[in-house]
Order: sequence, then structure tokens, then C-alpha cells
Amino acid sequence: MAKKPSDDQEQDGGKIGGKIATRADDYPQWYQDVIREAELAEPAKVVKGCMVIKPHGYAIWEKIQRDLDARFKATGHRNAYFPVLIPQSFITKEAEHVEGFAPELAVVTHAGGEQLEEPYVVRPTSETIIGYYFGKWISSYRDLPLLVNQWANVMRWEKRTRMFLRTTEFLWQEGHTAHASHEDAKDEVERMLNVYGDFAEQVMAMPVIRGIKTDSEKFAGALTSMCIEAMMQDGKALQAGTSHDLGQNFGRAFDVKFQTEGGGLDYVWQTSWGVSTRLVGGLIMTHSDDAGLVLPPRLAPIHAVIVPIYRKEEEHAAVMEAAERIKAALSEIDISPPRSRYRDFVEVVIDDRPLRPGAKFYEWERRGVPVRIELGPKDLAKGQVCVKMRVDSAAGSGKEFIPEADFIAGFRARLDTFQSELLRLARARMHARMVTIDTWDEFLAAFSGEQSTFAWCHWDGTRETEAAIKEKTKATIRCIPLPGQGPDPEPGTCVFSGKPSRQRVLIAKAY
Amino acid sequence: MAKKPSDDQEQDGGKIGGKIATRADDYPQWYQDVIREAELAEPAKVVKGCMVIKPHGYAIWEKIQRDLDARFKATGHRNAYFPVLIPQSFITKEAEHVEGFAPELAVVTHAGGEQLEEPYVVRPTSETIIGYYFGKWISSYRDLPLLVNQWANVMRWEKRTRMFLRTTEFLWQEGHTAHASHEDAKDEVERMLNVYGDFAEQVMAMPVIRGIKTDSEKFAGALTSMCIEAMMQDGKALQAGTSHDLGQNFGRAFDVKFQTEGGGLDYVWQTSWGVSTRLVGGLIMTHSDDAGLVLPPRLAPIHAVIVPIYRKEEEHAAVMEAAERIKAALSEIDISPPRSRYRDFVEVVIDDRPLRPGAKFYEWERRGVPVRIELGPKDLAKGQVCVKMRVDSAAGSGKEFIPEADFIAGFRARLDTFQSELLRLARARMHARMVTIDTWDEFLAAFSGEQSTFAWCHWDGTRETEAAIKEKTKATIRCIPLPGQGPDPEPGTCVFSGKPSRQRVLIAKAY
Repeated sequence: MAKKPSDDQEQDGGKIGGKIATRADDYPQWYQDVIREAELAEPAKVVKGCMVIKPHGYAIWEKIQRDLDARFKATGHRNAYFPVLIPQSFITKEAEHVEGFAPELAVVTHAGGEQLEEPYVVRPTSETIIGYYFGKWISSYRDLPLLVNQWANVMRWEKRTRMFLRTTEFLWQEGHTAHASHEDAKDEVERMLNVYGDFAEQVMAMPVIRGIKTDSEKFAGALTSMCIEAMMQDGKALQAGTSHDLGQNFGRAFDVKFQTEGGGLDYVWQTSWGVSTRLVGGLIMTHSDDAGLVLPPRLAPIHAVIVPIYRKEEEHAAVMEAAERIKAALSEIDISPPRSRYRDFVEVVIDDRPLRPGAKFYEWERRGVPVRIELGPKDLAKGQVCVKMRVDSAAGSGKEFIPEADFIAGFRARLDTFQSELLRLARARMHARMVTIDTWDEFLAAFSGEQSTFAWCHWDGTRETEAAIKEKTKATIRCIPLPGQGPDPEPGTCVFSGKPSRQRVLIAKAY
Repeated sequence: MAKKPSDDQEQDGGKIGGKIATRADDYPQWYQDVIREAELAEPAKVVKGCMVIKPHGYAIWEKIQRDLDARFKATGHRNAYFPVLIPQSFITKEAEHVEGFAPELAVVTHAGGEQLEEPYVVRPTSETIIGYYFGKWISSYRDLPLLVNQWANVMRWEKRTRMFLRTTEFLWQEGHTAHASHEDAKDEVERMLNVYGDFAEQVMAMPVIRGIKTDSEKFAGALTSMCIEAMMQDGKALQAGTSHDLGQNFGRAFDVKFQTEGGGLDYVWQTSWGVSTRLVGGLIMTHSDDAGLVLPPRLAPIHAVIVPIYRKEEEHAAVMEAAERIKAALSEIDISPPRSRYRDFVEVVIDDRPLRPGAKFYEWERRGVPVRIELGPKDLAKGQVCVKMRVDSAAGSGKEFIPEADFIAGFRARLDTFQSELLRLARARMHARMVTIDTWDEFLAAFSGEQSTFAWCHWDGTRETEAAIKEKTKATIRCIPLPGQGPDPEPGTCVFSGKPSRQRVLIAKAY
């Protein structure tokens, strides 16, 4: 495999219309090429480690946002907004938190033409400042649970960046909740993890493993972190969402006390949970192929493209008339989830540019449009359309010729089938690649060079072993699986140390 | 009138459940009291000039966002996202722009533990950085028009702040477009001004005057700025939205050239336009009264509250059952605008807390819920509900007793009527207060002390007169009205200088 710089800032955004590397030849280059060719984003370059999210990429993020937002509201959360600047002293109030975030902070030292008495940091996450206001808002058990969420930009000054997966500024949501008991908080942590897991599978068609982070991988300031981990096509893991049990750590740091139902006084139990524009990176690496982007219909900004095909100018009008008729009929189809808070209609583009059909096919494939409709005089004569799906299912592959009315009547079902098919394919890929590894030699072979996979291994539970595995192979413990998410717990011996282990954990290299 | 500090940072957020000052006694205090009691927001205090937008306030902003967003998309715009940090040198590239914004910048000088070679500013607006990327994306007339919008936070280090109306950080949208001709750009500027004007009137029920800013009031870097101006209940004006013709100023500053259809080379013609969380302040000051917040149904997070009324515990179950039945029936009512991209159902709260009904009425009035339903055993026996609207219309005032089925069947129409009624009342207030002033003595009287009104006056068109009027009265020229938005143009003599004038302009004190 060719080695290319994987840091965005070393890459030029490049001109659109270039080649897409194959996954087999150069996976990191393929990823950047897909993003460029689908016009999802480009490295900002003039702002270190940032990216510009272009309209096609942002439209996917908007669809992610509105579906997640509806799920947060259905579970009782309300959105709010807290300042982007946080007094620097706030960050230092929770010992583990400052240790985790201090090296990555961007600091505002001057404002309004003057040096500030106390600098502000641009929020890397908002536990501290939200903790502060929780302290002002909560005084009794009657104020609990307090369930808020914020959609915002955050900044972490990362050294190596990669579009969507790790950028200095990124967009995300951060849920912050306060509860009267640890039990309630733990329930919330698991509830939101499942919201993420369900969203990943139902909407992104991205299978995930739900689990618990080890102590060395947990959020800086949490008691426990739960996560969803997805497998990318190179076998690496992507931490796609996290949900944290903060215990009383921030409650203590910001003195958030409440009168209990029993008349005592206690610190609140808090949680936080978040997903970010990183999900777009996960989406790309889950479904896309060497021809470019592949999108599940529930997140596709455009569902179908109609390419009129004609040789003679006198055929043009009739073909365009049919194209407009089909577009109008498809655009009427409501594809919203039942009783959802948003309404989705089928989005159709007619591509009548003066280009060869082949060039158009190529371009719309790269942009990940699920359904392509070719329409020529012969099809019109037969009352049919020629349909090509962006990814062939095992059942029907290649072009289909379908009567126009049947095609329209079946369009919603066609999208649903395509959505399920992408999930099935992604699941199949993940499971085909999952392995159970019991010996260190096998382990080294599985993770040699740039290779990765999802390996279920016994681990002795120590930080030392975890660090040694990481140092020797770059693979990390992604999570301790929740019940049903991995092999059933059974005792064994650690793949590295040979010491006793209670259950297998998921190990992989990670983004 | 009592004089209170109007700067947020001098005010404590205060405990909820306090008094609301009357508008007549102390208008600035009334404004802050309404925001506190409706739990819309609070001054951040620990972050200078910022506010925390609380869930009830943020829910209003979300409804503003989604309706505007649909209007932007319907006019061909797509959302994108650009970095929050802008290289400091970018700001200096357009001469007027830097002069306007330099004093208000917040500057990031350190990041990742190191001093930066070139500081970044936190975006005060994004013409510069978006101009830079437009330069990379545009090369031919075929790339035009380029129509993007960004929903984002921005920061301007203001000295005196007031929640929603002027805060150092605020949320907004900024549209940025590039066109092949000045005509196209000017059309866009007017199109988006009308999107804002229509939204203000149809959704916020806030009447506005559409006009053109004078040169001294225009956006720093624009050729011309258009605006919508709304009258607050103290007679002051609120600039509620602006739409700018940037000419080729930023095109030149960032070298955004394109090949014209004729084969030449030209700089693009750009526009920008924005509205912000300031709209929430305008909404409050347009409709609210001494009892607290008043919300138009199209922006109300909660449409109806049901207050169960009962004396004896054995009546409770029957009343609650009826309350739940009514809530379920109302919640089924789809109140979305036709073929909209979002779906709105009636939101109902049953307030069964162990409090006196009067205390509940008082609280829900303060929070601006449009419809209150009182429900007791007598109502149940008669199959009726007792309804009280948040603001009495001239026609029906006080409580209405309506058969339950009729109430539910007529609920959507009731909301529509309430929405129109609020617009009618606001229009009536504005028109009742508008004056035509022709003498300087009359002018001084109209703007003495804290007083303000919307005054249509002749102006000689000079900067000197504009500055003198402002200096002597604090009133400013809000806009030169577009056709039909003010008195028909007719020549006259300037209210201040007595020199010739071509038409009357709108003068008021402003937020």
C-alpha cells in the first residue's frame, strides 16, 4: 500500500473531477478523494485543522441533526445554548478534566481592543460551564431530572487532523443532565447510548457494537463512559458516539447541591453524551466504494437523478416532458417516518446539462445518489423507465426496466429496501471480518502493518496490559461489550499476559 | 420613569417568581423581568456580555430557525459551514469592513499550549472567510449564482449589552451569495429582505417597515444595506434584519474573479443578509404585556395548558381523565403550514401540580401560552371547557364556555385567529404611534427624554444633518422607505436644516 500523508493540512483540497484512489491501493487517499469528489467538504488550510463543510456535506449533517433531535425530544430533553467562551479557571476545577483537555485548548486573551483580565477558552466541551449554571438552577429534588442538550461548535487543538473524523473545530450535540440518584443517572447514560445505537443502525445503516470504555479510554472527568463502535472498511474502529456517567465529579467541582426528598443535602449525579460531524466520516467509510459516495436514503439529500437520453434535438422535448412528469410524481411521495416532527419528500434532480450521459452517471455515482433513472425515446414508447441503484443488491443487479407507474408506486418501498440492504451489507462485512483471537502470535499477525480488524480477546483487566498492547500494535481496547453485543462472557486467559480474564473485549485500531 | 441600569451585566438574573415591572413605570426593567419570569434566558455574568438561552427561549429560536430555513431553501439556498476562527489578516482586506469591526473583535492568540504565529479572530461575521472560499470555488459564470447560508454563533465585543438585543455572542444565520451581474445581486438583496419581512409579519406577527439604510448606517463594506425596522412598545425601533448589496468590494478584496459569458473576466457581485437571536427580543417587545410574555401560536413552544380544577380528592380522577382526553385530541391536530418541511402538532401541557389554580394561571400567563383551558367537575357535567386566551381580542374577551367537541374541532382556527389578532393589534399600535413631523420644535418634543416614536420627516440627504439629529436627540434615520412602506415620495424641506428634500425618511430612537 502506498503511504500518503493522512493529515488534511498536508493535502490540497484539489480540483474536483480528479481520480478516486481505490480502497485496496490507498485507503486514506480514497477517503479524501471521496469527500472531494462528492463535494462534502475541504480542508480549511488557512485555519489550522479546520474544514469547510460544503452544501452537500452539510445537508447530510442536517438530516442527522433533525432525526437525532427528534429522538432527544422524545426522551424528554430540551435544547438550550450556553456561551462558546468559558473562563479558563472553570476548566481547572475538575482534576481529570483539566488534565485531559488543557493541551488542546484555544485561548482568547484579547477582546474589544484590550487584554482580558482572565482569558477565556473556546469550549472544547461544556461540562464545566453547564455545571456552573446547573448550580444556579437546581436547589431541590423537584428540579430534577434536568435534561438539556446543546447543538454547538467546539474546538480541540488536535495535532493531526482528518476531515470529519478529527478536526480542530467540529459541530456536535452535547447532552447534559442532572439526576437525584446514581441509578437515575446510569439509566440515562444507557438510554442515550441506545438512542445513538438505534440511530446508527436505523438511519445511518451503520452497525455498531455497544460497550463500556476501559478506564484509560474514558472521558476526562467521568466515572464510566459507554460508547458505540463501528467498523470502517479498512477494519479500523470508529468511536461514533459516547455517553458518560459523570458521577458527582462535576457536581462537587461546581457545588451543585440539592435538597433530597428525604430532607438531606446531596450533590447531583450528572451525565453527558455526544455525537459529532465525525458521524459523516463514519457514514462515508461504512458504505462508500471505489466509485465514490454511497448514502442510505434516510440521509441522502437527493434520492434520485433523472438523466434524459436522446440523440436528436427533436427527441429532447418529449423526453424532458416525461422527466418532469416523473419528477413531479416522485416529489409528491412523503417518505417521513411515521408521526415524525419533520417531513421528507423525495428529492429529485433532472440532469439536462449538455454532457454525455456517461459523464453524468459517473458524477452522480460519486455524489452517492441512491437511484438513477435513465429515460430515452425507446423507454417512452414502452411506457417504462430504466433504473439503476447506486449499489446492486444480491438479488437484482444491473439495470431494471420497469413500467413508469409501477416504478412510482414502488418508489418508497424501493428506498426502504435499499436502506435495509446497506445495513445488511455493512453487517455482513463487519461479521465477516470479526475474529476471536487467543494467542499473541495470531494477534500480532492480525494487527501487523496498517492492518486492523475487530478482535474479541481476553484481557486481564490491567492498565499495564492495555498500554503494552497499544504500544506494540497500535490496537486499543475499543470497549467491553454490553450483554448481547459480543461473545457471551466466559472466563479465559489474557491474549497478552496469559493472566485470568472474565470476558472478551473488543480490540481494534481506531480513528 | 425610574432609571435602571439597562446593561445586563449590571443586573442579577434574579430569582424566578419575582415581580414584573409595568411597561409604563420602567420599560427596560419590564423587558428583563419578562425574560426572567418566562425563563427565556439569563445574563451569563461569568462571560462578559453573553447570555444563557434557556430551554423555553431556545425553543422559540428553533421555531424561528426552521421556518426561515425552509424559506431560504425555497429560494434556492443551501446551508454550509465555515470555520469560527478567521485569520486576523483577512479582516483587514476590506477597508471599511476592518474599520467597522476591528474594535469589537475577540482574538485567539494561543492554542494547543503555544502562541500562534498569526492570531485568529472569532468570527464577527463571515464575509471575509467565505469570500476567500468563494474565490476557490468560482471560476466561471457557470458557477454562478452561488447561494449559501450558514447558521452559526458570532461574537462582537459590545460594551453595553441587553439580552437577545445585543450580546457579545449571538446566534444567527448569514446568507452569502455571489452573482454574475449587479442586477442579479440587487434582486437577491431585495428578495431576501422580503423573505425577512414576510416572515416577520406572517410568523412573528410583527409588522415591519422595509427600507434602505443611509450611508452612515449601512454595513461596513457594503454598497447599500436594506433593512426591516419594527416598532417596539416604547416607540423605539428595532432593526430586525438586514440584507446587503456588497457590490464587488469583497470580490476585489479576495480576488474572486470569474469568466463572463462573453469571455471576459470580472469580479463577482456579492450579497449578504442576516437575522439573529435579536428577533426573540423583538418578539418579546412587540407582543408582551404587564402580565408577561405573549407569543404568536406559530412560534409558541406550548400552545395550550390545561388546568384541572377540583376541590375534593374524589373529583380528581374524573377531571384528570377528561384533561388527558382533551390533551390527546388536541395533540393530534396537525398545525403545519401547507406542504412545509416541518410538521407541527399542537403542544399541550396538563398542569396538575399541587398549587392553587390562580398561581398556575399566573405562571402560564407569564410564559406566554396562547390558550388556557380550565376544567372542573361542573364543566365535565355540562360537556364543556372553560377557555381563556392569553390576549383578549376586541370581539371576545374574558372566559368562554364551549362544548368540548366544538372546542377541539375549532382549535386550529382559534390559533389562526389569535395569530392574526396579534398582528392586527401590533399594526394598530404602530400606526397609532406613527407621526409626520415637519418642524424641529415638534421633533424635539417627540424625542425628548426617553421618548421615541416612528416619525416620517423630510431630510436633506446629508451626513451632517443626520449626525446633528442624532447628537441632539439620539434619534437616527432608520431607513429610507421602499415604495409603499411609507408616505408617497413628495418634495419638502428638511426637518432640521430646512434644505430641500425629495422624500420623507423614517426616524426613531433604536435598540
